[in-house]
Amino acid sequence: MTLQSGDSRTTRPGPVTRTRVRHVSGSGVRDRRDDLATEEPLEIRLTAGGESRTIAITMRTPGADFELAAGFLHGEGVVQTGDIAAIGYCTDEDIEPEARYNTVTVRLAAQTLPDISQLERHFMTSSACGVCGTASLDALRGRCAPLAASPDLTVSAEVLYGLPSRLRKAQGVFGRTGGLHAAGLFTPDGTLVAAREDVGRHNAVDKLVGWALLDRRLPLGEHVLLVSGRSSYEIMQKALTAGVQVVCAVSAPSSLAVDLAREFGMTLVGFLRDERFNVYSGADRITT
Amino acid sequence: MTLQSGDSRTTRPGPVTRTRVRHVSGSGVRDRRDDLATEEPLEIRLTAGGESRTIAITMRTPGADFELAAGFLHGEGVVQTGDIAAIGYCTDEDIEPEARYNTVTVRLAAQTLPDISQLERHFMTSSACGVCGTASLDALRGRCAPLAASPDLTVSAEVLYGLPSRLRKAQGVFGRTGGLHAAGLFTPDGTLVAAREDVGRHNAVDKLVGWALLDRRLPLGEHVLLVSGRSSYEIMQKALTAGVQVVCAVSAPSSLAVDLAREFGMTLVGFLRDERFNVYSGADRITT
Repeated sequence: MTLQSGDSRTTRPGPVTRTRVRHVSGSGVRDRRDDLATEEPLEIRLTAGGESRTIAITMRTPGADFELAAGFLHGEGVVQTGDIAAIGYCTDEDIEPEARYNTVTVRLAAQTLPDISQLERHFMTSSACGVCGTASLDALRGRCAPLAASPDLTVSAEVLYGLPSRLRKAQGVFGRTGGLHAAGLFTPDGTLVAAREDVGRHNAVDKLVGWALLDRRLPLGEHVLLVSGRSSYEIMQKALTAGVQVVCAVSAPSSLAVDLAREFGMTLVGFLRDERFNVYSGADRITT
Repeated sequence: MTLQSGDSRTTRPGPVTRTRVRHVSGSGVRDRRDDLATEEPLEIRLTAGGESRTIAITMRTPGADFELAAGFLHGEGVVQTGDIAAIGYCTDEDIEPEARYNTVTVRLAAQTLPDISQLERHFMTSSACGVCGTASLDALRGRCAPLAASPDLTVSAEVLYGLPSRLRKAQGVFGRTGGLHAAGLFTPDGTLVAAREDVGRHNAVDKLVGWALLDRRLPLGEHVLLVSGRSSYEIMQKALTAGVQVVCAVSAPSSLAVDLAREFGMTLVGFLRDERFNVYSGADRITT
């Protein structure tokens, strides 16, 4: 697989944008320079056998764009390991220089584009029974099997306590801007394997899964995933399709995140902070 | 305008879902009952002159569904005040009972459906120059004029300091679940006018704008908007289309949120907490 290097860019955007800001507090008003987390649209294009189609446009923080595209497509069920022949930025001369690094083209090994209308979101739209949480889980069941009944991965409460501070330390851009979500992948003994940041929390998970896909590390059954915010249906769906058995979040889960975890046999931990947490599903993978 | 009451529902889902949870900390393991913020898909359908089309499916917290649908359509430029003839839940007998309250149909006063392909997101897709922050702002300029150069609304720093605690007090579901974003609308003297909650932060703003639209209170030029999380491009776009001049966020803005605020003459405040804040744009509307 050939990857056009993301480091060769000569134009913006980077992950951090410098700006001027007025700081107001009881001790007065002060103008200074500050860093912002960059937010720019990314267009993800799929190409195969001479045909090309835009699959999605997502607001994201530049950096790890190839991983984001690969992870997004994996989460949607479009690509598996080995399906991608190449990923590159758009080199079309017709495109403005500042937009050139906002379009990623994923070239498939196959010679035809997949039938995009079969994607789950579209399926939900035409579902005869209407949309509801149950229908969403049913749609997912069509392409994901529940995890094995007897868990082959356990992690201790002591290890979980330590994960948020390790993820925070790995968040370079958050430290400068205070404005980014993060997702981190850990071994069961608490070693950080990889971490990714983004203004969108789904994107941070996509970048992580995309990294694993391109590095041929899927499925991620031997890892613990930690997200810096809340856990929602989409986060859990992405984790499930990547084979993650244990998902932890610093904040609350939604009802549908819990339903999904229970339905598919995943472990879901929430409010992981200050050396305490809640387990909503799959408590047998956690030792105390 | 006739609104089918959202209170007449006889089946779930409500904004809060009861569940069992295992709490783990240094002082031991304890099983108990807990509340989760409900997350369920909502399908938004548009109907006019006998034609009907699904516009979007969004994950949301049930409650204020009609407002969410109206606000979403307003933010996308599909409806203005007076364009909506009726809003109702799906009463189709073919739809499963549990899905019936997850489909909202918005009936337009017009006899034909608008050309959805003209919507901004689609416009961005086919933009000849490729996608980038500048193109996103250009697309918005097609339907939103910048605010007046001389601001007719000012708000004091003292008033701003007090807003987060007032919004938090209005967050009934957050108090029970710890898992919801909020958006609040205030007068310039700090009086709370309305607040809405949702698992998605964009949805909380949509619900607020939809409430204002259905209550014929748009544009919201005399109000201050506060969001509980970060400010992104989408939050600012929704605020701009609703005519809001002052947007405050408890957390960080993204680079594109700041670009949009400056381009359209909006005031943008970030990190509003602990009696301090940063002003990224439109500081002349804030008195110290």
